[in-house]
Amino acid sequence: MLIDNVGRHPLLKEVEICRVGVKSLDKPRAVELPVGIITTDLEAIVTDPQIDIIVELIGGIDRARELILKAIANGKHVVTANKAVISRFGAEIFTAANQAGVYVLLEAAVGGGIPVIQPLKQSLSVNRINTVIGIVNGTTNYILTRMQNEGASFDDVLADAQQLGYAEADPTADVEGWDAADKIAILASLAFGGRINRDEVFSEGIRQVSKTDISYADKLGFVIKLLAIAKRCSPLSSSSSPPTLSVRVHPTLVPKSHPLASINGVYNAILVEGEPLGQVMFFGPGAGAGATASAVSSDILNLVAHLKSRQNSHSNYNLDPLLACSHQDYCQIAPVSELDARFYTRFLTRDQSGVIGKLGTCFGKYGVSLESVVQTGFQGELAEIVVVTHDVQEGKFKQALDEIRTFEAIHSIPSLLRVI
Amino acid sequence: MLIDNVGRHPLLKEVEICRVGVKSLDKPRAVELPVGIITTDLEAIVTDPQIDIIVELIGGIDRARELILKAIANGKHVVTANKAVISRFGAEIFTAANQAGVYVLLEAAVGGGIPVIQPLKQSLSVNRINTVIGIVNGTTNYILTRMQNEGASFDDVLADAQQLGYAEADPTADVEGWDAADKIAILASLAFGGRINRDEVFSEGIRQVSKTDISYADKLGFVIKLLAIAKRCSPLSSSSSPPTLSVRVHPTLVPKSHPLASINGVYNAILVEGEPLGQVMFFGPGAGAGATASAVSSDILNLVAHLKSRQNSHSNYNLDPLLACSHQDYCQIAPVSELDARFYTRFLTRDQSGVIGKLGTCFGKYGVSLESVVQTGFQGELAEIVVVTHDVQEGKFKQALDEIRTFEAIHSIPSLLRVI
Repeated sequence: MLIDNVGRHPLLKEVEICRVGVKSLDKPRAVELPVGIITTDLEAIVTDPQIDIIVELIGGIDRARELILKAIANGKHVVTANKAVISRFGAEIFTAANQAGVYVLLEAAVGGGIPVIQPLKQSLSVNRINTVIGIVNGTTNYILTRMQNEGASFDDVLADAQQLGYAEADPTADVEGWDAADKIAILASLAFGGRINRDEVFSEGIRQVSKTDISYADKLGFVIKLLAIAKRCSPLSSSSSPPTLSVRVHPTLVPKSHPLASINGVYNAILVEGEPLGQVMFFGPGAGAGATASAVSSDILNLVAHLKSRQNSHSNYNLDPLLACSHQDYCQIAPVSELDARFYTRFLTRDQSGVIGKLGTCFGKYGVSLESVVQTGFQGELAEIVVVTHDVQEGKFKQALDEIRTFEAIHSIPSLLRVI
Repeated sequence: MLIDNVGRHPLLKEVEICRVGVKSLDKPRAVELPVGIITTDLEAIVTDPQIDIIVELIGGIDRARELILKAIANGKHVVTANKAVISRFGAEIFTAANQAGVYVLLEAAVGGGIPVIQPLKQSLSVNRINTVIGIVNGTTNYILTRMQNEGASFDDVLADAQQLGYAEADPTADVEGWDAADKIAILASLAFGGRINRDEVFSEGIRQVSKTDISYADKLGFVIKLLAIAKRCSPLSSSSSPPTLSVRVHPTLVPKSHPLASINGVYNAILVEGEPLGQVMFFGPGAGAGATASAVSSDILNLVAHLKSRQNSHSNYNLDPLLACSHQDYCQIAPVSELDARFYTRFLTRDQSGVIGKLGTCFGKYGVSLESVVQTGFQGELAEIVVVTHDVQEGKFKQALDEIRTFEAIHSIPSLLRVI
C-alpha cells in the first residue's frame, strides 16, 4: 500500500507504511490512516517479516529498548528519536545492529529538525573535533530567555511554560539538565568516535538560576544559557583510541558576542569546533511535530536510498561506515573537579569593609586568579559581592569557597555558576 | 602509496594520493609530497586508469570544465570546489556523470567548510523548501561589516581588505555579486530539485552601498548585507515539475533581529526555510584553507565509504540518489521586475516644504504603499529624505521613481536598496 505525502522527496513515494503501533486505538488522530493499519501489538510489528524499517517514537526507556533490540534481531533497520535509550543503551544497540548488518539512525534524537547527527558522521568526521557545545533543550532555553527578557523568576516562567505546553507537567528531565545530558552524550560519541558512559555525564539544572544573577550577568556582558559541552581534554595523541573528554551540562554565563548567546526561545543550536575546519554552528527548531517529522523522514530517506542503490546486490553488502556506528571503545570522562573553568559567584556579606580583601587573600592562597570583584548592591543589611574568576581548577576553587564559607563576614553564597 | 594525515577519519587512511597536478613544479610548497607525484600534465591524471577520484581545485572555467568532463568520461568520480563551473555547466556535467555512473561532489563550492550541500541533498530534501537565503561571500561580508563597525567608506575598506588578503587584486567577481550568484544558483538547484540557468540569476553588487546608507539603516533598525536569495514563487502545485523561483543577489537591509544580521566578517551562513521543518541555519567559515580542506576531504570520505560498502558488488550498482544530482528539468526564474519587494530609497531634494507630500502622492498613484518617510538630514543646501516601502511590485516602484525623478524638487536619488 502506497501512502502519499509521507514526505516531499520522490524516493519517499516508494515507502509503504505497513503498520502503525499505538497505545490506544480509540484516541482521535489528526492523520487519516487506512483501516487495519493501526494496532496495539507492537511485538507483531518488530517481528513482521514484511517490514524493512521500524520507526520508534514511543519514548521511555525499557520498552523502547526491548522493541529496538527485537527489531534488530529480526533484521530490520531502525529509525528512532529516543535520546534516553540511545544515550544509555547505545553500546548494546549498535553492537547488535552491526552484527545484524542493519542501521540504527537517530537524527531526530538531538536538535529536532537540525541536521546535525548526519553531518557529524559524514562531513565533519574528517576533522579533529575539539569541542561540541550545544543549546539542546528547548524548554530550559525558553525559560531562561523569558527570565532574561522579562526579569521574571524561574517558578513564574515555569508555571506559564507548563500552561503553554512548552514544559511538561513533570519538568524534571528538562529542568535538571538530564535531557540535555542524554543529547550531549550522543553528540560526543559521534564527534569523538568513542562510546560514552551516560552515568559519567555531569549535569546541573537551572532551578538555581535566579533573576538576580541573570541581571548581574547582563551587566557584566553575559547571558545565562544551559549549555551541553563535550570537550577534548587529552593532548593530541597519535593513538587511535578515543580521547579523554569532559562531558557536562550546566547553566553557563555566555558572553553576549558568543554565537550561542543569541539563540533564544525554544530554538536549539550546536556549535562544533575542529581542525582544520574552525567553528561551524547549526541552528533550528529543537522540537515540535514538524522538526521531528523532518528528521525522521530524512533518516527513512537515507535508508531507502541505501537500500535502493544496492538492490541488485541484496546479499553480501557491507554496512556503509558513514551511516553505521562502529566505534567500540569508551572515551575516558574526566571528573568535573579536575577541570579548569571560570566561575561566577555571588556572596552575601555582613561586613562590607575589608571583606573584598579577605576574599582576595583566600582565593590567592588556593591559586585562584580573579578577573573581577564587584560590590553590586545590597539585600537589606547585607552587601552583595560578585566575583568572576579566570580559568581555575574546579577542585581548588571549591576548597577556597569552603574556607570562605567559614568567615564571620560571609552570610551566604547564594550563587555559583560557570562562565564559558 | 599511503599518505598519512590526509584527514582524521580512519577511512581516509585507505586513500592513496596518486598524482598532484600543478602549474609550476618549482613553486615552493608547504606540503611535503613524495618525489615523482607532482606533475604539470593534468591530462595524464584525468585519464590515468589507476585513479578512482579526481579532485579539481584549479579554479577558472574552461580548462576546469574540460578536465572534469574528461575525468567523468574516463569513469572517475570528481570532487570539486569550482562554483563557477558547476553553476554554468552543471547540467552538462551531471548528465555526463549520471550516464557514466560516477558522482560529482561539491561540498567545498558553497559555504566553505559549512556542511550545507550534503544536508540539502539528504536531510532537508524531505521538506518542501520555500526559501534559501545566504551570506555566501566572505569578502563582501567582511567589507560591509567593517563599513558598519567603523563608519568607513567602501573604497577605503576594499583597499585595506586587498592588502590583508581578504579581497583579491581584481575584486570584481566578489564585489559585483557574481560569486554569490554562482553559489545561490547551486543551492537553489539542490533545494528546489531543478536546474538553474545561471544567466537568469539577477545580481547587484555592493559598490553602491554608501556609509550614509549604512548609518541610516542602522537608525531604522537594519544592517546591510549582501544576500543571495532563492525563493519559491509559484503556488503549491502537485505536479513534479520544478517550481518557479526568484533567484537573486543584492545588498539588502536586514532587521537587526534577523538570524543573518549578526553574521559578521568573513563568516558565511545559509538559512533554509521549509515545511514541515521551519527554519534552520548553517554558520561557519566561508573560505580559507582549513574550511576547503574539511569540505573536500568530507566529499572524498563519502566516496570512499560508498565504494567500500559496495566492494563486493563491483559492477551493476545503481548511483545513490542522495549523492547524485539527477534532476533534468529547469526551474523557471521569475524576472526581478515582476517580484514583490520592500525598498529603501534615499532622495536629495531641493525644496523641503511640500516635497514629502509630492512623493507620497506619486507613490500612491502607482499603488506603492509606504512604511516610513523620514527627513533624515541635510547635505549642504539639499534635504535628505529616506523612504521605506511595504511590499510592492518592483516594476511599479520603478515607474513611480521614473516619474519622481522628473520633479523640479528632486535633485537626485543616490540610493535604492531592497529590504528583506
